[in-house]
Amino acid sequence: MLKKVAIIMGSDSDLPVLQKTIDTLVSFDVPYEVHIYSAHRTPAEVATFISNAEENGFAVIIAAAGMAAHLAGAIAANTILPVIGLPIKSAGLGGIDALLSTVQMPSGIPVATVAIDGGTNAAILAIEMLALSDIDLHEKLIQYRCKNKQTVLQKNADIEAKFNK
Amino acid sequence: MLKKVAIIMGSDSDLPVLQKTIDTLVSFDVPYEVHIYSAHRTPAEVATFISNAEENGFAVIIAAAGMAAHLAGAIAANTILPVIGLPIKSAGLGGIDALLSTVQMPSGIPVATVAIDGGTNAAILAIEMLALSDIDLHEKLIQYRCKNKQTVLQKNADIEAKFNK
Amino acid sequence: MLKKVAIIMGSDSDLPVLQKTIDTLVSFDVPYEVHIYSAHRTPAEVATFISNAEENGFAVIIAAAGMAAHLAGAIAANTILPVIGLPIKSAGLGGIDALLSTVQMPSGIPVATVAIDGGTNAAILAIEMLALSDIDLHEKLIQYRCKNKQTVLQKNADIEAKFNK
Amino acid sequence: MLKKVAIIMGSDSDLPVLQKTIDTLVSFDVPYEVHIYSAHRTPAEVATFISNAEENGFAVIIAAAGMAAHLAGAIAANTILPVIGLPIKSAGLGGIDALLSTVQMPSGIPVATVAIDGGTNAAILAIEMLALSDIDLHEKLIQYRCKNKQTVLQKNADIEAKFNK
Amino acid sequence: MLKKVAIIMGSDSDLPVLQKTIDTLVSFDVPYEVHIYSAHRTPAEVATFISNAEENGFAVIIAAAGMAAHLAGAIAANTILPVIGLPIKSAGLGGIDALLSTVQMPSGIPVATVAIDGGTNAAILAIEMLALSDIDLHEKLIQYRCKNKQTVLQKNADIEAKFNK
Amino acid sequence: MLKKVAIIMGSDSDLPVLQKTIDTLVSFDVPYEVHIYSAHRTPAEVATFISNAEENGFAVIIAAAGMAAHLAGAIAANTILPVIGLPIKSAGLGGIDALLSTVQMPSGIPVATVAIDGGTNAAILAIEMLALSDIDLHEKLIQYRCKNKQTVLQKNADIEAKFNK
Amino acid sequence: MLKKVAIIMGSDSDLPVLQKTIDTLVSFDVPYEVHIYSAHRTPAEVATFISNAEENGFAVIIAAAGMAAHLAGAIAANTILPVIGLPIKSAGLGGIDALLSTVQMPSGIPVATVAIDGGTNAAILAIEMLALSDIDLHEKLIQYRCKNKQTVLQKNADIEAKFNK
Amino acid sequence: MLKKVAIIMGSDSDLPVLQKTIDTLVSFDVPYEVHIYSAHRTPAEVATFISNAEENGFAVIIAAAGMAAHLAGAIAANTILPVIGLPIKSAGLGGIDALLSTVQMPSGIPVATVAIDGGTNAAILAIEMLALSDIDLHEKLIQYRCKNKQTVLQKNADIEAKFNK
Repeated sequence: MLKKVAIIMGSDSDLPVLQKTIDTLVSFDVPYEVHIYSAHRTPAEVATFISNAEENGFAVIIAAAGMAAHLAGAIAANTILPVIGLPIKSAGLGGIDALLSTVQMPSGIPVATVAIDGGTNAAILAIEMLALSDIDLHEKLIQYRCKNKQTVLQKNADIEAKFNK
Repeated sequence: MLKKVAIIMGSDSDLPVLQKTIDTLVSFDVPYEVHIYSAHRTPAEVATFISNAEENGFAVIIAAAGMAAHLAGAIAANTILPVIGLPIKSAGLGGIDALLSTVQMPSGIPVATVAIDGGTNAAILAIEMLALSDIDLHEKLIQYRCKNKQTVLQKNADIEAKFNK
Repeated sequence: MLKKVAIIMGSDSDLPVLQKTIDTLVSFDVPYEVHIYSAHRTPAEVATFISNAEENGFAVIIAAAGMAAHLAGAIAANTILPVIGLPIKSAGLGGIDALLSTVQMPSGIPVATVAIDGGTNAAILAIEMLALSDIDLHEKLIQYRCKNKQTVLQKNADIEAKFNK
Repeated sequence: MLKKVAIIMGSDSDLPVLQKTIDTLVSFDVPYEVHIYSAHRTPAEVATFISNAEENGFAVIIAAAGMAAHLAGAIAANTILPVIGLPIKSAGLGGIDALLSTVQMPSGIPVATVAIDGGTNAAILAIEMLALSDIDLHEKLIQYRCKNKQTVLQKNADIEAKFNK
Repeated sequence: MLKKVAIIMGSDSDLPVLQKTIDTLVSFDVPYEVHIYSAHRTPAEVATFISNAEENGFAVIIAAAGMAAHLAGAIAANTILPVIGLPIKSAGLGGIDALLSTVQMPSGIPVATVAIDGGTNAAILAIEMLALSDIDLHEKLIQYRCKNKQTVLQKNADIEAKFNK
Repeated sequence: MLKKVAIIMGSDSDLPVLQKTIDTLVSFDVPYEVHIYSAHRTPAEVATFISNAEENGFAVIIAAAGMAAHLAGAIAANTILPVIGLPIKSAGLGGIDALLSTVQMPSGIPVATVAIDGGTNAAILAIEMLALSDIDLHEKLIQYRCKNKQTVLQKNADIEAKFNK
Repeated sequence: MLKKVAIIMGSDSDLPVLQKTIDTLVSFDVPYEVHIYSAHRTPAEVATFISNAEENGFAVIIAAAGMAAHLAGAIAANTILPVIGLPIKSAGLGGIDALLSTVQMPSGIPVATVAIDGGTNAAILAIEMLALSDIDLHEKLIQYRCKNKQTVLQKNADIEAKFNK
Repeated sequence: MLKKVAIIMGSDSDLPVLQKTIDTLVSFDVPYEVHIYSAHRTPAEVATFISNAEENGFAVIIAAAGMAAHLAGAIAANTILPVIGLPIKSAGLGGIDALLSTVQMPSGIPVATVAIDGGTNAAILAIEMLALSDIDLHEKLIQYRCKNKQTVLQKNADIEAKFNK
């Protein structure tokens, strides 16, 4: 049976970005759970949840947070499962604070960081990891890429029809 | 048999950072190959190598590049294997150009980005992915974390002995 | 017969900026084609289009992309035609990610980068290159500059009339 | 009896900056302890140490870390004692990553952040907090300020003698 | 009797951020005063107010300013009370100017800097300092943390109910 | 008779910021002229205007421009009158491009740079320069400062009445 | 007969970067001239040189400058020949000031900007422009690309021999 | 008699940059005084010195400081004389902290900011202000510009002789 992806957000204000993560996982039929845990307001709950993540059937963790985004790092510190960090843009600095806080991890504890507000890519990266040992997901990823390519080609056809004589 | 990690660097000047990647993979007995391919000088070779990567036994790709670091993205465009992007610091901008060029990928094609010059973490992240379906690596990762922890505790003991009465 | 300018955008969301490019080329009667190709979603199509660009009558390529803007570089890697990079502003970082991803190219593969969202200037730069061997365009550029100058002088006259006694 | 200041560094490479912290505390006769705990390599030890900090006689915590500097935040998450964050400069980004990771804390869990590599000021800020209920430290702070002022005035006298006729 | 917190803002346009500071202090029953003093337009009034702050019953100063935010530093120069700097976001640079102007203080004169527009955290940090010698505030802080934790856990329960089967 | 201040903007879109400059000069009864000249579209007109500025009765030049803001520098290159550079915020980068393009002048050709969109301060700085040899302006500046101070003190009184018991 | 490339630097301290430009042009047998003109110290000479550039046999201008790098823009303002801007790194800001000052040109006056300190690419871009109407250069560019590719492949072979079993 | 220029530095470590300021003033025979006053360590001395600056014969103030460079602003707050701000580069952030802290002044209190470490330009700007009412300095500035121009032209002649056939 396919292992689950844990989606953990630091605040419910991150949900709009994570909805794309959820939708993408759903479209691949990947089981997931969504949780709100704060690295700073509920550190013990983060540690407990993550320490049990593996035996609870999780294979990959997606952690989303903004500002001094410690969540992904705090999770990575408590598991050897791959942790995907999703920096969330907040007012003012455009998410560069969350990006640097997520990606600049010290040696030994990596966080696989995706683009600021890159909710879809967090899911795709998780699926790519799961697909390493799941032929079904592997096939779906190829189809997904193919569909994305077709979308671009269709848009290209449309714009060619509009602009090129 | 364990699948291989491909280490691809955009330039041989990136080798000092990647030596840490290699050393870490070696210490985990993870098979790997090292290649130099440039997204801009040898784009066809990149595409060819990557298109065949899966059937050639690779499971994860680590791509290291500096400046307008397109290598990881160019690789990710040609495979559904997980791609780890390692931004390399070059003169002047301290690696922020490579970081942004690597991490800010468009929807659908993620690059799992680690810290600037984070050669060790690129390897550990690859190993975490492989360990999802390799009980041996899983165990080694736990030991690695444990050893890192012991190192910190030993340093703590040393500094406590030196400073605390 | 005048050679064509290829306008390639990474996403149809870039069209508002590129409309200025198109309008400028039209106003100079420079033949052009517009395409949507993504460096990451359709890498083979990019390579194919560009490899044939010269024999298909193109002399200059304008490539527009945002975020980790690899498109101009991916194109430059496949042609010796001059490639003009147009970084597109996206949410959050104000386009500095696209600018650095476009301009910081490695030695040997330049991208002629213009300002963030500088759609008009991408066209003018292309026209300046074409005008090197086209006396007609050369003359039109002089008139264009002249007209721009007259516009400034007229605005100056208006503001002088309003503010200066 | 005066409560202690805990100095916690994420890595022994931070010691040169923290030596200034230690020297300043020593010069004020403020009791302190020095520890190395990593938010990522020894998260449980951080939590344990901090959870017991108050009953072990600590009043203020100084936390120093570089890169994605989560240490101060991880500590603040586990105590209501004031936590002083000291961002450490590392290669490349000049410490802006550590500064943003330390200061941009979410609502409810502040970290009192001082300048990048501001080892002395971390100590002075701790002393100012302790001096709120310690008349002796209060007096020493006034003398310290006075001495700093005299140093500036003496340097001013020297430079006036050298340059002003 | 509990000492007061002084809230000083450089401009009345900073009030929306400081309202959160005020509300937080009120909810902890911490006495406070609010003042508008400008480091540049009323430097003498700043110096006078601060020089008398201690004997007027203030224990901690919160200073909020934007742009070249000198206010916290100008205050810190005139007192040995702990000064909390609250950088305010203004148009254009997103508050990075205010952050750097507030936090990068020279050796000997620290400013305890909180996040850009971090009005609540400025108050909490002040309360943490006061709680060092106030058992009542100490207790309230523990309850405040507990309430924040419960809020997160409730939100987690809600989102789990919505998304997890 | 008082010499004039020249206000030169690179584009009429800069007028809203410069209206504050104009209003301030008007309120000090300082004679001025407003012009639109572009360093890039009308370089000869800039050079001509500036070369004659002194004999046409100008004492100080205020130059406002956005993006790669060369106007102030281009003016400074053609006069020994003091040139005040006013960087204008444009979309995306928040004016940091205009600020750096204006302030980072090479040795020998200074531009007296004020804050991004600092229209009022450009005027006040010009007036401070003129006041060096104009006792009337000198007096008005003192009154202006005094009035600004009174405004702050009145706002302080209002906020004290509102918040402090 | 092949038209010339003008290389103009703002200061002789830029020569080390431009030596790569010169060497590259020499290796392609492209005629060139080297000049030092400062946009700020010799504005009239810049304007005169550029106004006559076309009739003096120049087809492309390469302009290199650091800090508030106005040179390329000042040149572009005086010619309709394509102008290549080469931002030079100076102390402190790593060349980001020169990059923004060079690339963020206003509508109508483009500067074809290459990477910070990208001396070789400035030459290659100029050659690509000249090659649009020069079959010989066209051929040499193909060979140059081919040679660069061979260099990468050779380095790849070396590193494969060293690391891959 | 010519009025004096006050050179005030925040720390004696700023002297190497200010030596260029001093040398330039000396070469123009402009009387000056050099002082070390710290906005934070000696705020009262700064205020006292500046409040008396005008009656002590000063016409222009040059203030140099690094990091959270408040000195120029603190001086400007206490005088209506023009204040020139000279941001000093310190470790890590390359002087961007000092630049923003110096230039982003609030409305009503301008600081005429020059480039980071622009010691010569601080002096030239002061001289340009003094030259508004000093025909002798006016003449010297013209000669200085002329000499700078000759230096560039000589370097141009040298480099032309070396490179151009």
